[in-house]
Amino acid sequence: MPRQIVLASRPSGSPTAANFLLTETDRPELADGQVRVRNLFMSVDPYMRGRMNDVKSYVPPFRLGEPLEGGAIGTVIESRSPDLAEGDTVLHGLGWRDEAVLPAGSAQRVTVIAGLSPSAYLGVLGMPALTAYVGLLDIAALKPGDVVFVSGAAGAVGSVVGQIAKIKGCRAIGIAGGPDKCRALVEEFGFDAAIDYRAGNLRKALREYAPGGVDVYFDNVGGEILDAVLTCLARGARVVICGAVSQYNESQVRGPANYMMLLVARASMAGMLVFDYEDRYPQAMAELAGWLRAGKIVSREYVVHGTVGDFPQTLLMLFDGVNTGKLVLALDGS
Amino acid sequence: MPRQIVLASRPSGSPTAANFLLTETDRPELADGQVRVRNLFMSVDPYMRGRMNDVKSYVPPFRLGEPLEGGAIGTVIESRSPDLAEGDTVLHGLGWRDEAVLPAGSAQRVTVIAGLSPSAYLGVLGMPALTAYVGLLDIAALKPGDVVFVSGAAGAVGSVVGQIAKIKGCRAIGIAGGPDKCRALVEEFGFDAAIDYRAGNLRKALREYAPGGVDVYFDNVGGEILDAVLTCLARGARVVICGAVSQYNESQVRGPANYMMLLVARASMAGMLVFDYEDRYPQAMAELAGWLRAGKIVSREYVVHGTVGDFPQTLLMLFDGVNTGKLVLALDGS
Repeated sequence: MPRQIVLASRPSGSPTAANFLLTETDRPELADGQVRVRNLFMSVDPYMRGRMNDVKSYVPPFRLGEPLEGGAIGTVIESRSPDLAEGDTVLHGLGWRDEAVLPAGSAQRVTVIAGLSPSAYLGVLGMPALTAYVGLLDIAALKPGDVVFVSGAAGAVGSVVGQIAKIKGCRAIGIAGGPDKCRALVEEFGFDAAIDYRAGNLRKALREYAPGGVDVYFDNVGGEILDAVLTCLARGARVVICGAVSQYNESQVRGPANYMMLLVARASMAGMLVFDYEDRYPQAMAELAGWLRAGKIVSREYVVHGTVGDFPQTLLMLFDGVNTGKLVLALDGS
Repeated sequence: MPRQIVLASRPSGSPTAANFLLTETDRPELADGQVRVRNLFMSVDPYMRGRMNDVKSYVPPFRLGEPLEGGAIGTVIESRSPDLAEGDTVLHGLGWRDEAVLPAGSAQRVTVIAGLSPSAYLGVLGMPALTAYVGLLDIAALKPGDVVFVSGAAGAVGSVVGQIAKIKGCRAIGIAGGPDKCRALVEEFGFDAAIDYRAGNLRKALREYAPGGVDVYFDNVGGEILDAVLTCLARGARVVICGAVSQYNESQVRGPANYMMLLVARASMAGMLVFDYEDRYPQAMAELAGWLRAGKIVSREYVVHGTVGDFPQTLLMLFDGVNTGKLVLALDGS
């Protein structure tokens, strides 16, 4: 029988096994217009932690006793819709389960590209890449020559931020944890430089790589890194608040104590959500695919092979910073 | 002999008498192009506290052993410039002293308006009002119908923020400390409502007065009030960071722990400095004077009568929240 993961209790701090329950479900008859999808890849994203809390946010919280959700790539195995056929590869929002039943209109058929895993639609051709694109071009209004800092730079969003910045004629400096990630930023993703925040003296390193200050800071982590970057803003800097992965498991969020540097630098800090920019998706997707074909951006994934029951541990890997590139759970384990 | 106040030591926390030294100076001969001004009114402003610290900011720190500076209104008592004559009333930057010697070009002659103290050029016709004007119209891009919150609402900047918001067809809600200030906000300054942050349950009160959320928040105080307002932002809200008077005497600044609400609300937070908008001054001054004449804005000052030696205690009154309206030290005491 297909299995799914249900939210058993709300985590306080880091999620634990006790917060999740792996359950079996029956396999209901499809209604007209529905499809049944066997999931192949499930997206593992930081925002999922926020949805486990019972607070009003930009998406409703996950509900206790109900299966969790998230981006997934799967194969249509049964269809009662003329719009999708058996064998189609689709992107949809019902991850955390082996099989999903949903209206055909809620699944998007994707073109499998030779030499590229379909999971790319969860990463370099998916939401993370669109987030990077919109955040840099629409929110930060990136200009050639800008000095761009990005935190969580080795992650799904951050790695694309740096690559787009380079394509647009900017200087891209990534902040990540550990020498391996930093090496990947420069050697694989083409950043101009990488700063290992674990190596100490972060502010000194930031200044060294941006003596004239940072024009655009794309923040995925919050906490002490955000505070450090705020001390290095160039006049008129734009700070894009995309995430705060360092804070998601904290009961007390650390606010940016250096926020008054926004005044000193006449800078601004804006929160963004990619969902607001759906009208930009077609152009963004076309550009991203073109850059990928031209070798100007690379797709890197950290694929965990397992079963749906491995999802909770895989999510924890994200907060431990295990992955370079997009973290994906491939349902090909036993 | 004229007297002045010298920075004797840098305060840690609230300034004390030991940080200041009242000294007598000689009365130097004027050089060509200089004027001697006898100060009548000295501006007492929150930003002065920041300049007492030895940190890089938007203005250089005050220097140890040298006289402090600040806005002042005075009378020219001696002139070696064709541009200013004895008896002229001028606005200039050398407060904290009985007499100032400066190039005529560094002093601005002001027109004394019948029925209005010349100290209005330190308040409702001066920097605080220009700050309110530029912050609302240029930084926050105020639109009719916006719900505007302002903290430090009874102060020199805040009281003008609310009045301009009303002129522009917005709903103005002030946050201030104590029932007297709150009454003044509504009865004198024409705010739609006032919230006493000392009365407790700030978030509940904020929601009550802005059930649909706050479109523009003009922040003069930082700290817990900023954090509370961040939870009440309307979609697309603009937060203007003008000051953080609650934090200036703190060794550890409290960063806004709720800054991720910028993301939830797709809001932005921008730092502003009025000095960047000099090209806006002529229009702003003309409009402010027109509104004042038409009775659409009122000038309210809290005038301490004393001598230059009273400046340090007067500055502390600002942090104690004693004043409603612009705090000024009039040098007419004995």
